[in-house]
Amino acid sequence: MAESKLKIIPLGGLEQIGMNITAFEYEDSIIVVDCGLSFPEDDMLGIDLVIPDISYLKEHQDKVKGIFITHGHEDHIGAIPYVLKEINVPVYATKLTIGIIEHKLKEHEMMRTVKRKVVKYGQHINLGCFRVEFIKTNHSIQDAAALAIYSPAGIVVHTGDFKVDYTPVFGDAIDLQRFGELGKKGVLALMCDSTNAERAGFTMSEKTVGKVLDTIFSDHKHERIIVSTFASNVDRVQQIINCAYNYGRKVVIEGRSMVNIISTAMELGYIHMPEHTLIDIEQLKDYPDELMVLITTGSQGESMAALSRMANGVHRKVTIKPNDLIVLSSSPIPGNEKAVTKIINELFRKGAEVIFQDVHVSGHACAEDIKLIYSLVHPKYAIPVHGEYKHLKAQARLAEELGVAKENIFLLSSGDVLELDEDSARINGRVHVGDVMVDGLGVGDVGNIVLRDRQHLAEEGIIIVVLTLESGTGQVLAGPDIVSRGFVYVRGSESLMEEARHILDGTMQNCMDKHITDWGKIKTEIKDALGDFVWKETKRRPMIIPIIMEV
Amino acid sequence: MAESKLKIIPLGGLEQIGMNITAFEYEDSIIVVDCGLSFPEDDMLGIDLVIPDISYLKEHQDKVKGIFITHGHEDHIGAIPYVLKEINVPVYATKLTIGIIEHKLKEHEMMRTVKRKVVKYGQHINLGCFRVEFIKTNHSIQDAAALAIYSPAGIVVHTGDFKVDYTPVFGDAIDLQRFGELGKKGVLALMCDSTNAERAGFTMSEKTVGKVLDTIFSDHKHERIIVSTFASNVDRVQQIINCAYNYGRKVVIEGRSMVNIISTAMELGYIHMPEHTLIDIEQLKDYPDELMVLITTGSQGESMAALSRMANGVHRKVTIKPNDLIVLSSSPIPGNEKAVTKIINELFRKGAEVIFQDVHVSGHACAEDIKLIYSLVHPKYAIPVHGEYKHLKAQARLAEELGVAKENIFLLSSGDVLELDEDSARINGRVHVGDVMVDGLGVGDVGNIVLRDRQHLAEEGIIIVVLTLESGTGQVLAGPDIVSRGFVYVRGSESLMEEARHILDGTMQNCMDKHITDWGKIKTEIKDALGDFVWKETKRRPMIIPIIMEV
Repeated sequence: MAESKLKIIPLGGLEQIGMNITAFEYEDSIIVVDCGLSFPEDDMLGIDLVIPDISYLKEHQDKVKGIFITHGHEDHIGAIPYVLKEINVPVYATKLTIGIIEHKLKEHEMMRTVKRKVVKYGQHINLGCFRVEFIKTNHSIQDAAALAIYSPAGIVVHTGDFKVDYTPVFGDAIDLQRFGELGKKGVLALMCDSTNAERAGFTMSEKTVGKVLDTIFSDHKHERIIVSTFASNVDRVQQIINCAYNYGRKVVIEGRSMVNIISTAMELGYIHMPEHTLIDIEQLKDYPDELMVLITTGSQGESMAALSRMANGVHRKVTIKPNDLIVLSSSPIPGNEKAVTKIINELFRKGAEVIFQDVHVSGHACAEDIKLIYSLVHPKYAIPVHGEYKHLKAQARLAEELGVAKENIFLLSSGDVLELDEDSARINGRVHVGDVMVDGLGVGDVGNIVLRDRQHLAEEGIIIVVLTLESGTGQVLAGPDIVSRGFVYVRGSESLMEEARHILDGTMQNCMDKHITDWGKIKTEIKDALGDFVWKETKRRPMIIPIIMEV
Repeated sequence: MAESKLKIIPLGGLEQIGMNITAFEYEDSIIVVDCGLSFPEDDMLGIDLVIPDISYLKEHQDKVKGIFITHGHEDHIGAIPYVLKEINVPVYATKLTIGIIEHKLKEHEMMRTVKRKVVKYGQHINLGCFRVEFIKTNHSIQDAAALAIYSPAGIVVHTGDFKVDYTPVFGDAIDLQRFGELGKKGVLALMCDSTNAERAGFTMSEKTVGKVLDTIFSDHKHERIIVSTFASNVDRVQQIINCAYNYGRKVVIEGRSMVNIISTAMELGYIHMPEHTLIDIEQLKDYPDELMVLITTGSQGESMAALSRMANGVHRKVTIKPNDLIVLSSSPIPGNEKAVTKIINELFRKGAEVIFQDVHVSGHACAEDIKLIYSLVHPKYAIPVHGEYKHLKAQARLAEELGVAKENIFLLSSGDVLELDEDSARINGRVHVGDVMVDGLGVGDVGNIVLRDRQHLAEEGIIIVVLTLESGTGQVLAGPDIVSRGFVYVRGSESLMEEARHILDGTMQNCMDKHITDWGKIKTEIKDALGDFVWKETKRRPMIIPIIMEV
C-alpha cells in the first residue's frame, strides 16, 4: 500500500482575496489554519460580508480537530462565528488574538459553546497526527504568529501575515533563529505571505512611524491633532499615545472598532496608557484644541466611520475647523483610493491641514524579507499564499531565484488539493469551495440570480405591469396599470407611460383576438411589447414584471 | 461709474472632477474654454455619463461668442454635442482636436449645424471684446494648446492640460519662449493644470517610454506582444508602431475607440504607419505569433474593452496563450486600480507574461514644471485648475513659494464668480451649476429620486404586493399576491413569503374591520406590516410597492 500523503487545501483564501482558511489533512486528521471573511466586491450589491463555503469540512467533520489562528485581522478571524456554528472545534491562538475573537463570540452569544485556548510562542499543540508550534513574528497587529505544522509527511512552515521588524514597538522581533533552526532540520514546504512580493527592498520598522509622528507633533504645537489609523494597529495607536503624552496632550479614542480593540488591548496589557491621558469625547470641550489628540477610525474612507463623518460635517461631537491638523496614518487598500481622496478633499475644503503621505509602513514583508525567510527555512516546496495571483506569481519568481525548483512551486487556487511528501508533490483533484454571501441575517440565501436582479434593478430600474382578468373569459377587468421605480423618462409634455399604456391595451386586445389565455404567454407578450417600445424610445432596458390577477 | 471687471466662472470642472468648462465674461462678451464631460461616480447607478448644467450660458446666450478647446480628451470635449444643441456657437481648436470633435459631431448628426474652425499655434482669434491666442504645449494627446486670453482687464494664460516635453515624439516642444514673452508683457492671471502638483520633480519625456518599449521588444523576440494603452495617446501608439516596424512585426489595432482615433490621426498626418505594417485582425491567423503586435484599448480595466474581453476569454478574435506578452502601457486612473489588477491577475492565470509597471509617463506637469511656468508667466493672480481640491491646494502652495501673494491665489469651486482686474480680485457671487446625468437617450431626466430608488433596489431588492378590490364594497377579490426581485430569504422548509401572505391577509381584514377604504391608507398599512415583518425576520429593508386594482 502506498504511504499516505499530506494534503493542503485552501478553502477560500486565494480567489476571493482576503478570506484565509486552509485545511491540512493527513489520514484521519484535519486541522484548519485561519478562518477569515472578505468584504463584498463591487458587484455584490447589498451584501454585508462574504464567508467561505466549508462544505468540505462539514463532510469530514469527524476528522476536523481544531482551528489555528495566526493573528486577529478580519480576513483571518472574521468567519469564526459562522464556521463554528457549523463545526464546533476548539480554537488556538495567542493572547491578544483570542481577546479579539472573544469580542466576536460575545456578539454572537457563543462564549459558552466555543472552546478556545491561548497559546504561547514556542508552545506545541498536538491534534490528531499533527503537531503545531507557534512562532513569534511581527505584523501590523500585535501577537502575530507563524506556524510550524509537523505532520508525518514532514514540516510545513506557514508564515501567516508577517513582516521582519528588528525594532518592534512592543515585544520581541520575529524569531528568525527558530526559522533557521527549522530550516536546518528540514522543511517540506513553506507557505509564505505574498502581499508585498512585488515590492523591492525591506519593509520599514513600525518605529520609523513614531519618528515621523514626533516631527509632526513638534511642528504643530498650536493645532488640534486628529490621527486616523487602522483600529487593529495597536502599536501605531501606542506611538500616537506616546506622542500625545510627550507633548502634554490628552487623548480621545473615537470610532466603534477603535474603542473595542484598544480597550481589549489595554485590558490585556498590549497598550500602555499613561495616567490622566485618556479622556472621554464628552470632555473635549473642557480642553483647549492644542492640548488634544483624537485617534479615530476611517482611514480607509469608510463612509460610516468617524473620520468620514467629521469630513462631511455630520459627526455629532467633532466639527472640523481651520485650526485642525488631520493625519492619515495609513495608506489606501486597493479599491479605497477614491473614497480616501474624497475625504482628504473635504477636509481641505473645511480649511484644515491634512497630512496623508509617509505616515505609514506596511505590515507585510517586501521582496528582500521574503528572500530572508526562504534562505532560513530552505523549503523543498514553495506555496506562496496571501495575495492576488500577481503577488503569488511575484513570490514564485523570488522562490525560483533562491533555488527552489520550478516544478516545486505551487500557485494554488481555492479548492485545489495539493498532495505532498518528501518524494513528490502534485495537485490531485479539487474540493467544492465558494463564497457564501451574508446579507442581514441571511447567510448564503443571496445567490447569483438575486445579485443579477439587483444589478439590473440598479442600472435600469423596474416597470411593473398589473392587470386583472375575468376568470373563465380572460376578459381584462382592470389595468393594465403601470408602476415604475428607478426609471423615468421625460419627453416634453407627452408622457411615455401613457403611450406605453396604449401599447399594452393593444397587446391585450391582440391576445384576446388570438385567444391567448395562457398567462405565461400573455406575460411574454407584455414584456416584449413594452420592452421594445421602451428601448426604442429611451435606449434603456428596465426590468419588466407583468403581474396578472384573476377574479 | 466703476470700470468693468473680467469675470471667470468655472461651470462644472472643479467639483465634478474631469468636467472642464469655464466661462470668461467681460461686459457683453462671453467666451467658453473647453466643454468636457465626466464619467459617473460609483453612486450614479445606471448613468452613462455626466455633462455640465449650462443654465448660466443659456440665460446669457446672446453674449456667448464661441468655445475654445485646448485638446481632444473627453473631459474637455465630451459635452460639445450636448452643449451645442442648447447654444450653437462656433468651436475653435487645433487640427487634430477638431478632427476628434468632428467624429463626435458625426455620431450626433451635427456636422451641418456646428461651425468649427481649425486654429494654428500663434494664431489669434477675436471674439467680442476678447482675443484668444493658441500656444503650443505638450500633453498625452497631440495638438494640445494653452490659451492666452486678452481682455480689457488684462491677459489670462490658461495652460490647458500640459506637460513640458523637451523631446516630444512628434512636433515641437512646448513654446516656453512665448510664455516668457507674455510674462514680460504682464499677465493678470495664470490658470495652470494642477493634476501632478503633489508630485515632486519633472515629468519624464514621452520618448523615454519608447526606450522602455524597445527593450521589451528586444527581450521578447519569440512571444506575441499585446500592448494596451489610451486610445488618444497618439504618440504612444506611434512608438509602439515604430518598435513593431523595427523588429519586423505586423500591427493590429483593436478596440473601437483605438480604431477611431488612430484612423483620424493617420488621416490627418499625426501618425506615420510604415507600408505593409498594418494588418486587419482577420489576418491574425496568417502570421506567426512572434511577428505580431496588437495595440488595444482597455488599459484602465474597462469591462467592455478589448483587453478585458481577452483576459476573460470572451474576445472573439484573440485568445490569450502562455506565449503572449501583455504590456500595460498606462497607469490606473484613481478608482480603476481594482479593475486593472483583476485583468492582470486573469492574464497571469492564463499563463501569459504581463508587464504593467514603468511603461508609462504622465501627460501632466509635475511640481518643478509648474514652477517653471509660474516663473515664466509671473502672474499677478494664480487660479489653479484641473484637479481635485487637494491638487489645487498643492499648486497653491507652489504659487505661494514662488512669490504670488496668498490673497492673490484663488481656489475656485464650480459656480464661483471671480471678478478681477489689475487693482483687485475677489469672488463676487455664484451662478447656478450642476451635474446633468445622461442615461441612454435621456439627458437630465434621471435625478436624485431615481438614483435613490436605484440604490435602494440595488442593495435590498423589491417586494411587490398586488390586490384587487371590489368597487364599492372594498372587498378583497384577489390577492394579496407577492412578487419579489433581488430579495430572497430561506429559512429551512418554511417559506417567508407564505408567512408574509398570512400577515397581509390579517392586515386587509383589519382594514375592512376598521372600514378603511382610502387606498393611500391601505397601502401604508401594507407597507408597514410587511416592512416590520421582513425587518424582524431578515434585518433587511427591501423596497415595498403595494398596487391596488379595482373591478
